[in-house]
Amino acid sequence: MTTSMTTTTAGHSAVSADLYLRVQHFYAHQMQHLDSGRFEEYAATFTEDGEFQHSPGVEPARTRPGIVRELVGFHERFDNDPVQRRHWFNHIALELQEDGTVSSTAYALVVNVRPGGKPEITRSCVVHDTVVDGPEGILLKSRRVTHDEG
Amino acid sequence: MTTSMTTTTAGHSAVSADLYLRVQHFYAHQMQHLDSGRFEEYAATFTEDGEFQHSPGVEPARTRPGIVRELVGFHERFDNDPVQRRHWFNHIALELQEDGTVSSTAYALVVNVRPGGKPEITRSCVVHDTVVDGPEGILLKSRRVTHDEG
Amino acid sequence: MTTSMTTTTAGHSAVSADLYLRVQHFYAHQMQHLDSGRFEEYAATFTEDGEFQHSPGVEPARTRPGIVRELVGFHERFDNDPVQRRHWFNHIALELQEDGTVSSTAYALVVNVRPGGKPEITRSCVVHDTVVDGPEGILLKSRRVTHDEG
Repeated sequence: MTTSMTTTTAGHSAVSADLYLRVQHFYAHQMQHLDSGRFEEYAATFTEDGEFQHSPGVEPARTRPGIVRELVGFHERFDNDPVQRRHWFNHIALELQEDGTVSSTAYALVVNVRPGGKPEITRSCVVHDTVVDGPEGILLKSRRVTHDEG
Repeated sequence: MTTSMTTTTAGHSAVSADLYLRVQHFYAHQMQHLDSGRFEEYAATFTEDGEFQHSPGVEPARTRPGIVRELVGFHERFDNDPVQRRHWFNHIALELQEDGTVSSTAYALVVNVRPGGKPEITRSCVVHDTVVDGPEGILLKSRRVTHDEG
Repeated sequence: MTTSMTTTTAGHSAVSADLYLRVQHFYAHQMQHLDSGRFEEYAATFTEDGEFQHSPGVEPARTRPGIVRELVGFHERFDNDPVQRRHWFNHIALELQEDGTVSSTAYALVVNVRPGGKPEITRSCVVHDTVVDGPEGILLKSRRVTHDEG
């Protein structure tokens, strides 16, 4: 399966079907970690020197401990807010880069739900990841999130 | 392809890429059946002794005829309501269980649309399935749905 | 991997797991083209004689230049509207047809975001595609979109 190539629309570098599937599954576990508050597990989906910029204009968090600190700090503002946040992904598009990494561009929606309330879409984003596929499996070298509302 | 393993983030049991893809496709057909009111076809996606609990706190429906009855009863309340319901899934995360079954945990949103109206997200859920992959292909041994709004 | 078959729920023709994955990836690139206003690239995802009907009751656009013209015309109405539109897909269900083409039926949501605003779901649709898998890779022979709000 690893030799099977995904021929995408003209102009896109091909990545294997196997890698595409494993990236999808990686995201499923990764984002369930994040939305369940398992920040250590989320940070472990990055490389040791990984960078995570969750909003435009903020300094990226760096290294796994740095990513955990950023997430703990970010979520402190919701300490008294029983919100359940869900990050949805769609249209994951991969392209092989010349340096052997894979760029991944995906749509994301942030859905918030509070007890007794209706789900609310609070944000539409695009996730820009640099994916590496090494001995530990798939990891993110970097994640940068842009916001559609500008 | 069946020997290809999906290496997920540390701590997750690996399932084959092939199985992951077939579960995705299974869900696509299954939920199109449900949203089109094809309750017999939906019930046929469960094992003979399958269990389906669509809401917390209600008694699960059991066996295929039992699941059909539950769905018919549930939808009677919408007999005079021309709502089109769509169940969306995201971040399907599989883990191999010790008994050979596969647990599947996925996000779900319920989208309602009425004639001339705008789509409305009425519910954010998590679907907890026990998947078996036998001679008939993929079937659900059980489905339990939890609701984010508590 | 091309010999691996996806066994779906009873009554569905099987398509290969590889094709299912490549269709998913095709859609990811295709819809990112559309939402980024790359209409030439979007039109290039159709066969030379491809047909695209984006709304019920309108005459389908035909051929790649015809599809580009239709999209340019459609988007002129938003020339002074800085809306970012995102088309989300879900539950892509494929079935092999007797003529060798593949029918693809998928859910779609249209999400609109304006600067400083909240994302709004404006439409719930079903996409009905005829997919061909030839020497150029995956292309659409036709796309017809139905709207849930009637």
